[in-house]
Amino acid sequence: MDTRRAEAFSDGVFAVAITVLVFNLLAINPPVLHYPDLTKAWPSYFAYVVSFLSIGIMWMNHHTMFGHITRVDRPVLVLNLFLLLAIVAIPWPTALVAKQLQHSGGAPAAVTYGLVMILISIGFAGLWIYTVRHAEKLGGQVEPETLRRSIPRFTGGLLAYVAGTIIAAAGLPVVALIIYGVLAVYYLFEHLPAPVEAA
Amino acid sequence: MDTRRAEAFSDGVFAVAITVLVFNLLAINPPVLHYPDLTKAWPSYFAYVVSFLSIGIMWMNHHTMFGHITRVDRPVLVLNLFLLLAIVAIPWPTALVAKQLQHSGGAPAAVTYGLVMILISIGFAGLWIYTVRHAEKLGGQVEPETLRRSIPRFTGGLLAYVAGTIIAAAGLPVVALIIYGVLAVYYLFEHLPAPVEAA
Amino acid sequence: MDTRRAEAFSDGVFAVAITVLVFNLLAINPPVLHYPDLTKAWPSYFAYVVSFLSIGIMWMNHHTMFGHITRVDRPVLVLNLFLLLAIVAIPWPTALVAKQLQHSGGAPAAVTYGLVMILISIGFAGLWIYTVRHAEKLGGQVEPETLRRSIPRFTGGLLAYVAGTIIAAAGLPVVALIIYGVLAVYYLFEHLPAPVEAA
Amino acid sequence: MDTRRAEAFSDGVFAVAITVLVFNLLAINPPVLHYPDLTKAWPSYFAYVVSFLSIGIMWMNHHTMFGHITRVDRPVLVLNLFLLLAIVAIPWPTALVAKQLQHSGGAPAAVTYGLVMILISIGFAGLWIYTVRHAEKLGGQVEPETLRRSIPRFTGGLLAYVAGTIIAAAGLPVVALIIYGVLAVYYLFEHLPAPVEAA
Repeated sequence: MDTRRAEAFSDGVFAVAITVLVFNLLAINPPVLHYPDLTKAWPSYFAYVVSFLSIGIMWMNHHTMFGHITRVDRPVLVLNLFLLLAIVAIPWPTALVAKQLQHSGGAPAAVTYGLVMILISIGFAGLWIYTVRHAEKLGGQVEPETLRRSIPRFTGGLLAYVAGTIIAAAGLPVVALIIYGVLAVYYLFEHLPAPVEAA
Repeated sequence: MDTRRAEAFSDGVFAVAITVLVFNLLAINPPVLHYPDLTKAWPSYFAYVVSFLSIGIMWMNHHTMFGHITRVDRPVLVLNLFLLLAIVAIPWPTALVAKQLQHSGGAPAAVTYGLVMILISIGFAGLWIYTVRHAEKLGGQVEPETLRRSIPRFTGGLLAYVAGTIIAAAGLPVVALIIYGVLAVYYLFEHLPAPVEAA
Repeated sequence: MDTRRAEAFSDGVFAVAITVLVFNLLAINPPVLHYPDLTKAWPSYFAYVVSFLSIGIMWMNHHTMFGHITRVDRPVLVLNLFLLLAIVAIPWPTALVAKQLQHSGGAPAAVTYGLVMILISIGFAGLWIYTVRHAEKLGGQVEPETLRRSIPRFTGGLLAYVAGTIIAAAGLPVVALIIYGVLAVYYLFEHLPAPVEAA
Repeated sequence: MDTRRAEAFSDGVFAVAITVLVFNLLAINPPVLHYPDLTKAWPSYFAYVVSFLSIGIMWMNHHTMFGHITRVDRPVLVLNLFLLLAIVAIPWPTALVAKQLQHSGGAPAAVTYGLVMILISIGFAGLWIYTVRHAEKLGGQVEPETLRRSIPRFTGGLLAYVAGTIIAAAGLPVVALIIYGVLAVYYLFEHLPAPVEAA
């Protein structure tokens, strides 16, 4: 089977997941709104921007990965499904962080965010490694060299999320959130192949 | 009419339905979050994963079924609509199971889940039987032999959901949920044609 | 411009609007669930099925209408936008009907439902009349005869919704809802061109 | 990379964002519904229509902009992502305006609406200026003259939103909302190239 419908389904899932983030903003609507209500909600804006950019970057990487193949088989569809399962969850830890950051619940919220990002990193790795190993069968033109070059970069992203999660668990959720934000911006301005992308 | 827009519409519906599942996770957000809040919500995670995989597998089967035809007529569109009607409902019994599993409301929740899955199984059967019977008119290359071979497998899936529903109604919702989970995993790793798919 | 992206955007809007209907079901989740809770929610199931089929039929008619043209201009996009504006609203009167039907709020709920359906009928008429009148410019093959034949059928649907709305306003919301349901089923099994479709 | 998946992803995001607006209507559902409940909710209907048309017009402009190019590069995808980030937020100030307009919270609500529209105007400008400047690399046929002609129009739209925001901040939210409504209608009936579009 060609990649067309797998891409259409994935595009749809990415589009809905990224738009669900607005529900965290919709929660900012007190019975009567005063200007301080808008400024004190800064964790919601910060979390919205970081998660939006993160999902957007993931879509770009997904786009690039599928650009390397022309056919999909059952394992690609299943690995893709596991990846989407973790990506669709992002609005949840985003909501936790937005709501809990200024309370004592900030640490478990930032840990949850980090755990979801770790799952996503593993999902991307699984899909990319399978794709590279079965490139010929999938009608792809990925060279083995590409995998070797992309692995260190991918491991770096995964390690940074692991580090952020540990820092959050140690009781520093704001530091962890800054790390997540820097990671999103880092990948945004990345002109070289992103961690899980081919050259 | 060709299958392009029917596939695009269906892909969109699958994508939204699978993403709506995250609203069950978004409900896990107490005023202040403590670590035990995250672990005791395990029925929500379990229900999220099982329903996500179930909808994903249904999309794969749908993908395969439409891969056998090149045109759609009015009955195909109507049968497809009835199938989507049942699939879109999945987030509801999922939310019931996630919330009620640890209470006395677990049995009716698991019964509802099973009833929706039975409706979906019937919907898939209806669409597939029509497709095979009118393969020539739909520009398809499905052989009659394919139907005969796929029917026992389909009946098996339907029967397993009926069994799970009865077990849930008998007051054993956790056993029923395990059966639903096993069914999702079974179809996930199915390398042979899935129940309602062609060879 | 060709019709590709206008169709993709419309398909997406239809897919999300039809899936938003599940939020009416998600509201059926009391603290502890008992079997009578499930049966007494029958207006929700009825409203879900009627609205799902209605939106699905509208998508089919939309599909057919765009099948007649190969290009879109600004007026087509604007008329299409007004049509989608009314269709996206459907989950709201559906929720009103589902919640109010067994209370004294049933009449205004069924009136609202009827008014939205009337707006949609007008939207379909506007788009279809413009399409037929500018068929040549839009690369279409719609014959003038098609318009003349389709107008009586369209007027019939619009008149039936007007009648249902008046009956609802007169204090008979259940009768109105049955009319809406019959209209949905009528169009579902319609093998001839639907009101706003070409032959 | 070609523009296909960037368009599909954007279409999906537009479709979901425009449909999320219905959640503001879904909030109109008191325990028992009386006719006055329906008429006094007029700010919700007004905000729904204005925001729906605004997002729809933005989609049309987006459609036209991408019609000028045949390839996308990383900066186009990133600029597109920032634009979508602001567009997806629209349902939030829409909900604020709908709920606060008849209370003292109307001014901050209308200011928030204006700020989001200003961000979107900047996002469109950024994407369009980049597109025109790198037209050759993107396989586009945009002439430099087009940019010069489109800039005054774009500045006009941005300035009108800035003016509306200032008027809202001065305590006249209804006047600001009328300006936003007029802007939406103005662009709707615009037969000349819209601010950020090419000829």
